Amino acid sequence: MKRYSDSFIFKTLLLATSLLLSATAEEISNPILANRHLDHVGFVVKDINATLDKWVEMIGIKNRPDIIIATGDAKNPTHYRGEPSKATAKLAFLALENVRIELIEPIGEGPSHWHEFLAKKGEGVHHFGFNIKDLGEKQLGRFEAHQYCAAQLGGWETGEYAYMDTHDSLGVTIELLEHYGE
Amino acid sequence: MKRYSDSFIFKTLLLATSLLLSATAEEISNPILANRHLDHVGFVVKDINATLDKWVEMIGIKNRPDIIIATGDAKNPTHYRGEPSKATAKLAFLALENVRIELIEPIGEGPSHWHEFLAKKGEGVHHFGFNIKDLGEKQLGRFEAHQYCAAQLGGWETGEYAYMDTHDSLGVTIELLEHYGE
Repeated sequence: MKRYSDSFIFKTLLLATSLLLSATAEEISNPILANRHLDHVGFVVKDINATLDKWVEMIGIKNRPDIIIATGDAKNPTHYRGEPSKATAKLAFLALENVRIELIEPIGEGPSHWHEFLAKKGEGVHHFGFNIKDLGEKQLGRFEAHQYCAAQLGGWETGEYAYMDTHDSLGVTIELLEHYGE
Repeated sequence: MKRYSDSFIFKTLLLATSLLLSATAEEISNPILANRHLDHVGFVVKDINATLDKWVEMIGIKNRPDIIIATGDAKNPTHYRGEPSKATAKLAFLALENVRIELIEPIGEGPSHWHEFLAKKGEGVHHFGFNIKDLGEKQLGRFEAHQYCAAQLGGWETGEYAYMDTHDSLGVTIELLEHYGE
């Protein structure tokens, strides 16, 4: 049996790789959103305890996730449509196989994007969350160049988020999330 | 250097595997939903052409997906809350990395779950779609045992779907999808 030379195999692999790369390059071009991996779907709900119980029962997880309180952070204070906001929320996360679910119950003094959503739409899916890098330095600008402004900004000790005003165009708010140092 | 015996390595692997399996078995218990892999997130929109353009621009895909018309199928005629329905819809699918997006513009004569959603909530996320087997024979019963009824049923040549009335509990409708022969 004739054996292929190392050189032939190398050249074939190189050709296959370059074809693959050019196919990928052709498929995606100049996106606004720098990451297409959906980290989580965020719901705004009225009673996080009740909704969490129903999700736990639906997907049959034995260990009920903890509910945490997301207060603002001094380093990244919450802003809603350009104004400082005291809005806080109760949060809980559940995991499906390929994506997470975030439940959010707005508490404390509004206004906030969560209160606004509940008043206008009632309970339901509020945002799609994507992890990105260089949020403030670069990514907000990409959205603003397409007339998508940040409706709410905030953060925690080691990260920050921005809710982009995409609902009227896409049917859902895009949340950009940056975890510092990752 | 002392080498471990094959028998020792085999036993250690066996122990690790059984611990892993018992952890998985403990985590999930008697779910209503038989599959935790989210196939797609379904949006109801007013103008599928406009929304599709905005999504294509957001994620930067070069080839705009086709829009198809989903008419009812004689084998699985559309039913809305128990009554036959002539509701049809325009559909399009986009792919994120780990989950798909379905855009739905209801057309034709209502009533339908899509028309109902648009009237009550406006544009936004309508359902989470999960692929399952034995839809009519078994899975609907699991939901009905927990007081979740089918709000809309329908199908196509090689499959069928059911929108389960879970929005008030979970914040989103669960769609059960069966592709025959898969």
